[in-house]
Amino acid sequence: MLAIVPLAALLSRATESVAAKTGDMVGGLLNATLGNLTELIITLAALRAGQYVLVKASIAGAIVTNTLFMLGMSFLLGGFKHHVQEYNRNSARLQAGLLFVATIAMLVPSVLADTETAATTAHFTRPLSVGLSVLLIGIYGLGLLFTLGTHREFFASVAHAESDEVPWPLGLALATLAGVTVLVALVSEVFVESVQQAATALGIAPAFVGFIVVALVGGAAEMVSAFAAARKDRLDLSVGIALGSASQIALFVAPVLVLASYVIGPAPMDLQFWPAAVAMMLIATMAASLVTSAGRSAWFVGALVTIVYVIFALTLYLLPPGIQ
Amino acid sequence: MLAIVPLAALLSRATESVAAKTGDMVGGLLNATLGNLTELIITLAALRAGQYVLVKASIAGAIVTNTLFMLGMSFLLGGFKHHVQEYNRNSARLQAGLLFVATIAMLVPSVLADTETAATTAHFTRPLSVGLSVLLIGIYGLGLLFTLGTHREFFASVAHAESDEVPWPLGLALATLAGVTVLVALVSEVFVESVQQAATALGIAPAFVGFIVVALVGGAAEMVSAFAAARKDRLDLSVGIALGSASQIALFVAPVLVLASYVIGPAPMDLQFWPAAVAMMLIATMAASLVTSAGRSAWFVGALVTIVYVIFALTLYLLPPGIQ
Amino acid sequence: MLAIVPLAALLSRATESVAAKTGDMVGGLLNATLGNLTELIITLAALRAGQYVLVKASIAGAIVTNTLFMLGMSFLLGGFKHHVQEYNRNSARLQAGLLFVATIAMLVPSVLADTETAATTAHFTRPLSVGLSVLLIGIYGLGLLFTLGTHREFFASVAHAESDEVPWPLGLALATLAGVTVLVALVSEVFVESVQQAATALGIAPAFVGFIVVALVGGAAEMVSAFAAARKDRLDLSVGIALGSASQIALFVAPVLVLASYVIGPAPMDLQFWPAAVAMMLIATMAASLVTSAGRSAWFVGALVTIVYVIFALTLYLLPPGIQ
Repeated sequence: MLAIVPLAALLSRATESVAAKTGDMVGGLLNATLGNLTELIITLAALRAGQYVLVKASIAGAIVTNTLFMLGMSFLLGGFKHHVQEYNRNSARLQAGLLFVATIAMLVPSVLADTETAATTAHFTRPLSVGLSVLLIGIYGLGLLFTLGTHREFFASVAHAESDEVPWPLGLALATLAGVTVLVALVSEVFVESVQQAATALGIAPAFVGFIVVALVGGAAEMVSAFAAARKDRLDLSVGIALGSASQIALFVAPVLVLASYVIGPAPMDLQFWPAAVAMMLIATMAASLVTSAGRSAWFVGALVTIVYVIFALTLYLLPPGIQ
Repeated sequence: MLAIVPLAALLSRATESVAAKTGDMVGGLLNATLGNLTELIITLAALRAGQYVLVKASIAGAIVTNTLFMLGMSFLLGGFKHHVQEYNRNSARLQAGLLFVATIAMLVPSVLADTETAATTAHFTRPLSVGLSVLLIGIYGLGLLFTLGTHREFFASVAHAESDEVPWPLGLALATLAGVTVLVALVSEVFVESVQQAATALGIAPAFVGFIVVALVGGAAEMVSAFAAARKDRLDLSVGIALGSASQIALFVAPVLVLASYVIGPAPMDLQFWPAAVAMMLIATMAASLVTSAGRSAWFVGALVTIVYVIFALTLYLLPPGIQ
Repeated sequence: MLAIVPLAALLSRATESVAAKTGDMVGGLLNATLGNLTELIITLAALRAGQYVLVKASIAGAIVTNTLFMLGMSFLLGGFKHHVQEYNRNSARLQAGLLFVATIAMLVPSVLADTETAATTAHFTRPLSVGLSVLLIGIYGLGLLFTLGTHREFFASVAHAESDEVPWPLGLALATLAGVTVLVALVSEVFVESVQQAATALGIAPAFVGFIVVALVGGAAEMVSAFAAARKDRLDLSVGIALGSASQIALFVAPVLVLASYVIGPAPMDLQFWPAAVAMMLIATMAASLVTSAGRSAWFVGALVTIVYVIFALTLYLLPPGIQ
């Protein structure tokens, strides 16, 4: 655990150096992508072993944690230092829109076919999951084309105080960012496993461990960067990391895992989630939409978002075993 | 099918000529009203025959298709030609508000009384449906009074590039609009019937045919006008046709059919819909609210809205028969 | 009933005199607090008697009534006199955010554990209710710190026409406000009881009486002040009373009652509500969010909000007994 702290400082510095060259949106995206890429690789191992409940819990947990906890704590920590913070609401709105579409894609199958039989699984849930996965990857790609290509001028950062630090050269920054992210992700992965064993030994509810603990530890690298950026009044970078990471997991990582399960998994994985997980994702998306529509933040906005996450965490912690 | 193409060009020209005289909001409303009036007349035949499942599917399908597909494709097609398009968000907001009320009216009975027995149908669902229908027609009338009467200055179009075409005289334009709309609607009605027979023969899921195919073909006339207006950067006209038509079906056509069923139907029809249809209407309304709150559009906004529709269509297409 | 009318005029005058000294937000909060305090004291008697269904119905009814009816009628009555009214949307947004969090806190337990057994009640519902109550009281306190402390400059009233009435001295106004509010609350309490008896005798659905009648009569004092303020174009005061009262009941009164039930009740009360009540609170919160995001109102906005309330009232009125 202590090993992460010095790495985190490096990581935050590298992210900001990259963002200084590429803009906050690309910087945030790069940070989120590196973090999620490592997670994707690690999750592929669980996929190969056929642990689909674990894979889905870690996907849903990461989406909810990034949308509520990472965003809320960024607003909160940034708000403690700065009276009011402005950020580009176009970016936040777009990410919230992407998250909304992903949540609908996960919600519709469960609403339309709540009765699950062997026949519906084979002829309905599986082909639907494949189709939805292709759609989600497609709209994610179009979103990148839109924000980085055709309409990039709308997603520029809100002007913020110039940093007094000299940014690193792009090459060094990128290499540091990649190296340290992968290192932190690997360290957290080891940590996640030992935490899971400890939690089981201590009798903590598995839903709490799967959704909350794993997501919090697994996202440590991104959180460090997001919180540091918020403290430096670079909220565009924080929002880019938090919501960018959440939408990337929902629209890219999850669909890729579904498609990959046909190649490397023991059986096809579908996109149908635990109804309570879908409800939490929907609430998280609504909260992010409501909160980011103003493009302005203060500490209490962060407190409001964080408290929704605490409500989820408390409920999952107390949840009797065997309900999920 | 080919017969519609030349008519469509006439229709779009007539709509714009009317709008040039009356403003985009009234022009859009007129276009939507003519289209829905024809649909209302045709639906009355199904009502007389007591085919209530068909009637309800066509109502819900038209609301969802107009809100998501017609609006989304207008944004998409307009966005391919114009970098950013502005429109009056007051109008869009009001229509979204009306749709929200209508969705609540269809949602509340199902939430409050999910157990359906003969006793509740007679003493709860039917009187409630009549009461809600009267309320919806009342608020629709008040909405017209508000937008065309007391507060019309808030619903003026966003300034757009002057058309280089000379508008037709109002009388000719109105006559063409009325004549061609009715003609297209009749042609699509014939087409709808043959499509339904073809679909059943091909084994396509009846929910897909009832919700998606019928709504797409039945709304052809309005779509042609809405898409053409979007291409000409007259997004107020497009939004007026798409959301105006959806809210008109929800707050006027549906309640009128419920009330008419007492006079001409074999038994009273209620306002209780298939829960999945209510869920789709609610999601469509939320998507329209989120998207139109900015009053600004680009191609990707259209892609986001359209993809939600594609998710619905794909799910309904794969839905095993017997679930609806 | 007639006794309330002259008291109401005094009350409205006193509220405005206080608001003239303290600002509309504090004035509205004070008015709401006095009204809710009286209700809290009265509800404690029902709590001591263990009438938890009654207590919960009156909580949910008051939240829905204040959010939809009091807000909607303020917009409507104000809109009849003034063409367009402006108000501070920061305050409305914050109250809607608080209501959103409270609704989530009441929604999550029901979604996650719909199967209720003796074991889950003891080990899940009760500790969860205590935890959520503490969280809600905490976030309510932070909200006060934010709006009255660290960021009070964001919650100033939108400038409105100067009143030609000379405000009373603060001491007199406060004393009148406190005295008359308590008096009106006591009178309405007596009235509520007789209404309940009359309603039961007349065979009116108990859900309608519990949610609608009790809430309307119980909130009479606040409504008089809110409506009078709206007529005088002081919409910030109206919104402050309506949404401030709703969020105070949701985040302060309800949690305090849960915690108090451990001390004075015959058995612990939990925070789990009738699912339909949670649905109504969620819809009310969404409606308030959508409507207040503009910071501008006209009569039709009020009509839209009020009609949602009428839909609820009609449904509850027709609801067959034994469903709640």
